[in-house]
Amino acid sequence: MDSAQQALGWAVRDSSSLFSPFQFTRRENGPEDVTIKILYCGICHTDLHHARNAWGISVYPVVPGHEITGIVTAVGSNVKGFTVGDRAGVGCLAGACNSCDLCQDGLENYCDKYVFTYNSVDTDGTVTRGGYSNFIVIHNRYAVHFPEKLAMDAGAPLLCAGITIYSPMKFYGMTEPGKRLGVVGLGGLGHMAVKFGKAFGLKVTVISTSPHKEKEAKECLGADDFLLSKNEEQMQKATKSMDYIVDTVSAVHPIFQLLNLLKVNGKMVLVGAPDKPLQLPAFPLLFGRRMIGGSMIGGMKETQEMVDFCGEHNITCDIEKISIDYVNTAMERLEKSDVKYRFVIDIGATLK
Amino acid sequence: MDSAQQALGWAVRDSSSLFSPFQFTRRENGPEDVTIKILYCGICHTDLHHARNAWGISVYPVVPGHEITGIVTAVGSNVKGFTVGDRAGVGCLAGACNSCDLCQDGLENYCDKYVFTYNSVDTDGTVTRGGYSNFIVIHNRYAVHFPEKLAMDAGAPLLCAGITIYSPMKFYGMTEPGKRLGVVGLGGLGHMAVKFGKAFGLKVTVISTSPHKEKEAKECLGADDFLLSKNEEQMQKATKSMDYIVDTVSAVHPIFQLLNLLKVNGKMVLVGAPDKPLQLPAFPLLFGRRMIGGSMIGGMKETQEMVDFCGEHNITCDIEKISIDYVNTAMERLEKSDVKYRFVIDIGATLK
Repeated sequence: MDSAQQALGWAVRDSSSLFSPFQFTRRENGPEDVTIKILYCGICHTDLHHARNAWGISVYPVVPGHEITGIVTAVGSNVKGFTVGDRAGVGCLAGACNSCDLCQDGLENYCDKYVFTYNSVDTDGTVTRGGYSNFIVIHNRYAVHFPEKLAMDAGAPLLCAGITIYSPMKFYGMTEPGKRLGVVGLGGLGHMAVKFGKAFGLKVTVISTSPHKEKEAKECLGADDFLLSKNEEQMQKATKSMDYIVDTVSAVHPIFQLLNLLKVNGKMVLVGAPDKPLQLPAFPLLFGRRMIGGSMIGGMKETQEMVDFCGEHNITCDIEKISIDYVNTAMERLEKSDVKYRFVIDIGATLK
Repeated sequence: MDSAQQALGWAVRDSSSLFSPFQFTRRENGPEDVTIKILYCGICHTDLHHARNAWGISVYPVVPGHEITGIVTAVGSNVKGFTVGDRAGVGCLAGACNSCDLCQDGLENYCDKYVFTYNSVDTDGTVTRGGYSNFIVIHNRYAVHFPEKLAMDAGAPLLCAGITIYSPMKFYGMTEPGKRLGVVGLGGLGHMAVKFGKAFGLKVTVISTSPHKEKEAKECLGADDFLLSKNEEQMQKATKSMDYIVDTVSAVHPIFQLLNLLKVNGKMVLVGAPDKPLQLPAFPLLFGRRMIGGSMIGGMKETQEMVDFCGEHNITCDIEKISIDYVNTAMERLEKSDVKYRFVIDIGATLK
């Protein structure tokens, strides 16, 4: 490790889940790499899972963070397209094989050899560390150009929450203007689905178990309609009224009624990841030729396309900006869904 | 009922499920109708469900049968395209609203007002009676021209089993030559899926719980490969090897391993109708951008397209031809899946 540089981050050291300052090394900037001084990093629910080792795969110390924006400070000799001083973003991916059919099709996110931005084994055998840190060194393929027009703080969560919604909406064809979109769950992912839905020209209905989200959905996010999923009469009335559903709920939840909301040929995509199976009734699929698909983040080409789209349509997340030393409190609040809709850590101003 | 004609069929009168001869009336041939002298009628598993009132919706006496071939004997004054003496087929549908967007798109099968060929309330308020009978009177929209080249006995089950497979394979795009198709379950529907798969130029793997089906699948039906779903090692080895899966199983069964057989972007369609929900794990959908869709028979335009396709490719079902007085025994054997692969009643020669 003679060619390493000192980095500073905040890490969770053990299953206590508490964050504290952490000194570590990152590789020197290689010929294919860019180094990015991190300004902002969003807090994704995945970060909480890793901090708490909820999936049993955490390799402590964990430095989370995969919603990163910042400024390029070094560019490798083989890198074209990035210059020192550029605004850049990094999302969930730090690597993949770069050569298989999927990678060649821009689907690095589905490559068997994907490397996540943190808690993943990098090509050099080290464990990756994410954006709760002062800088990152990354293969240039896995950095995107961040549009000049977009706020770097409120835009940071686009790198995960944004692409997680944008990619399936494009892939499953949920973009035809005038069609009706249902968004299940109004959290970090859900509020992005409302925004993309409106940008694509859809009529958007938020579907939630929380009646108090109706006002928020309509008045702040511009949703056209609201359905309380616990209200059977409302749900019944809305049978066969929707063309698409984006289901962002990551807890186990019933989907029978959701499927019935879809018109014939209607499509539902799951982007949340419940850890136990959902109950899938066959009849609503058969009788309405409906489908359920899944999707996980997006490839790098599409991530660039997504941030460019957000630049054109002025789409950012609704965020609460925090300092790095608030991160332990933020995690507690996130667990209670007490945030509208994403915490973003002001790394540049507060990580010293 | 002054304008009615006497028909003869075999009906189940009560939950004893036993069939016996049954005299009933059918309407006179109206201006939009064709009358078809029935020559052959396949026995679908649905017939057994209705005979036994398994779904609690049987209206006794039930005359089942929706895999009908025969000869046109009368044509209404407004009917174009059919002539007395034509070969014709009738499937699961006897009517729909004929005017909604779905009907206009040729999707009568998904119209809210669909009328099934038997045990359904017809537009005149009577209960429909199916093909275990000597003739049928039907709106010409719901009859298809049956190709001269196709055997009328072995071709009869195409009207339900054939379209049930053909329609989703077309709709979900499971037709690209050289791609790999998995067929789950090798019964009436499954063996059609193998045949259509081969006709579309796919590599077909049969997936079954029964080891003795391997020989049959490969030698008689031309499947390229066979997977024993209970053999974990085999299933594990086949991870991400398939582009499409047609799942024909109508009992509750695990789908986690089936989903893992799909490549990234792989598609699975359910055509069986388990009466209880399946367990749907989210991770295989998310990590492979896989999807599960449903489908139910097909519209009339596509049913015509399907029988024409079968005429061109010489596709029929593998059948066991029986006389009408064998129907009670046939039902017992069907319940034990003791048929390769469809019983077809020789109505013309045996119903007197």
